[in-house]
Amino acid sequence: MAGNKYLVWLNWPIGAFRLNRRSRAVLAGFLPAGAPLEVARSEKAFLRALPGATHAICWNFKKEWFALAPKLRVLATPAAGRELLPPDAEMPPGVVRVNGAFHGAIMCETVLACIFAHARGLYRAYDFQRNGVLWPRSEMSPHCTLVSGTRAVILGYGKIGRAIGGRLEALGVSVAGIGRRNVQDLLPSLKTADWLIVALPSDTGTDNIVGRRVLSALPRRAVLVNVGRGNAVDEDALADALRRRRIAGAYLDVFKNEPLAASSPLAADLPGLVRLPHASAFAPEYLPLFFRELSDGGWLA
Amino acid sequence: MAGNKYLVWLNWPIGAFRLNRRSRAVLAGFLPAGAPLEVARSEKAFLRALPGATHAICWNFKKEWFALAPKLRVLATPAAGRELLPPDAEMPPGVVRVNGAFHGAIMCETVLACIFAHARGLYRAYDFQRNGVLWPRSEMSPHCTLVSGTRAVILGYGKIGRAIGGRLEALGVSVAGIGRRNVQDLLPSLKTADWLIVALPSDTGTDNIVGRRVLSALPRRAVLVNVGRGNAVDEDALADALRRRRIAGAYLDVFKNEPLAASSPLAADLPGLVRLPHASAFAPEYLPLFFRELSDGGWLA
Repeated sequence: MAGNKYLVWLNWPIGAFRLNRRSRAVLAGFLPAGAPLEVARSEKAFLRALPGATHAICWNFKKEWFALAPKLRVLATPAAGRELLPPDAEMPPGVVRVNGAFHGAIMCETVLACIFAHARGLYRAYDFQRNGVLWPRSEMSPHCTLVSGTRAVILGYGKIGRAIGGRLEALGVSVAGIGRRNVQDLLPSLKTADWLIVALPSDTGTDNIVGRRVLSALPRRAVLVNVGRGNAVDEDALADALRRRRIAGAYLDVFKNEPLAASSPLAADLPGLVRLPHASAFAPEYLPLFFRELSDGGWLA
Repeated sequence: MAGNKYLVWLNWPIGAFRLNRRSRAVLAGFLPAGAPLEVARSEKAFLRALPGATHAICWNFKKEWFALAPKLRVLATPAAGRELLPPDAEMPPGVVRVNGAFHGAIMCETVLACIFAHARGLYRAYDFQRNGVLWPRSEMSPHCTLVSGTRAVILGYGKIGRAIGGRLEALGVSVAGIGRRNVQDLLPSLKTADWLIVALPSDTGTDNIVGRRVLSALPRRAVLVNVGRGNAVDEDALADALRRRRIAGAYLDVFKNEPLAASSPLAADLPGLVRLPHASAFAPEYLPLFFRELSDGGWLA
């Protein structure tokens, strides 16, 4: 639209989340021809350009900044979590907030990686390799299973949970999605679950939902994968379940306190524990996918 | 059919390949009601029962044994490789040899495991974990990529290669299958390949086909996955390419000499090298899938 001014400040310390030449070109390709695009490299530069901006794309925004942005119509952030922008109640009239919802396309691949690596014995083989065992063939045999034909329970069935579920179903996994509406189905569904995948947003309503009761309801062969938020997991209960081999493994991308500290019970070397550093959505396509989503949603018009 | 006698000798030292109570029940379910099924636990027991057998299911069979098996009509082996049964020229008239061709359903999952684990940085994260690094977030960020949108070249496009290709295409990977008929397309197709997946059978015609020329044609980001046979790879050339980081990784399930010996250049700790002990088809479903294939093909009638 004539008069639109696009202001981008995406200077996150994580490379995968930072605007670079390639992702900037992708964004420019989605803007109306000739539309002004300003890239701020610091909070100061962002605030300086804010008065003229109709569209601001940034990682965080303080409510007092609205006073500096009389022309603002769209405030967009790649983050799926709502923590970084002002809450709905503090949004001024005429400004729309847009949270990214593209993450499932990347995160489902991280979940596939964890599940297939576990089922096909890759970690076990790698441990043998690291220990100099050249041919652990009969040792590996009892531990390799098929993913197709297994059963996954996905706790948190919003956009991300559904993206994971859809991909798993296409690979022959039967999926039970558990959301707010059918939370009563969680415990009964765990009895036959091979995978418990947690894709819950941060919400005090689900603090420690994966605790002793949930972990005890799983079969011993079951594996937990958490790509949501760390608050959902009772870390002491999980560490205990792993130590006692009550479940076969836990692939954790998120933790109660991040960065993970040595004092966490999950910082220990527990059987079947595999950690990722909140990396499930890392990809060069992160911002390009977000910009495409903004364009598809009409938010860049 | 009346008069059929089924003789099974599947006593392989690898548990995943050995008849157990569950897989025996699966086989029995596919046989005509009341048909006699004899399970031999040794070569001696197998040879003793051979004279009465119309169907023999075993891992290996010597040509001189045909003289002991006047009633034999079907000689079936789960092995995809042709090495274990007598060659076509030595099959007596009236006896049909059946090699298993179900392996792709399992092996494609091993290939997915390797590809997704590599793309999503699982090995890198696990190395950090093993080294006590608790939060390698910015270190991981440049190394995590999406599988969807990448390009795979599959060298060996028989049943197994196609099973792998179909699964990858369903996950957004574009696939070029290279078989005997289009081997001239191999080198040109490598230039833009993210994954070179080898699913060739053992055949002296393809000895060392993955050598310096093929490895040099790949981009530096490319990864080799070999789930076929070890003869296809020039092990010195591959070790050299990994050492010089000419390619980003090699996931090898098979080797020129198995069991892998310390004298192999691939027994070393090379950057990006991940080894499996010829385990890509391990699964409890191995024999059940084979028996279903025999039944579907009419070989148990």
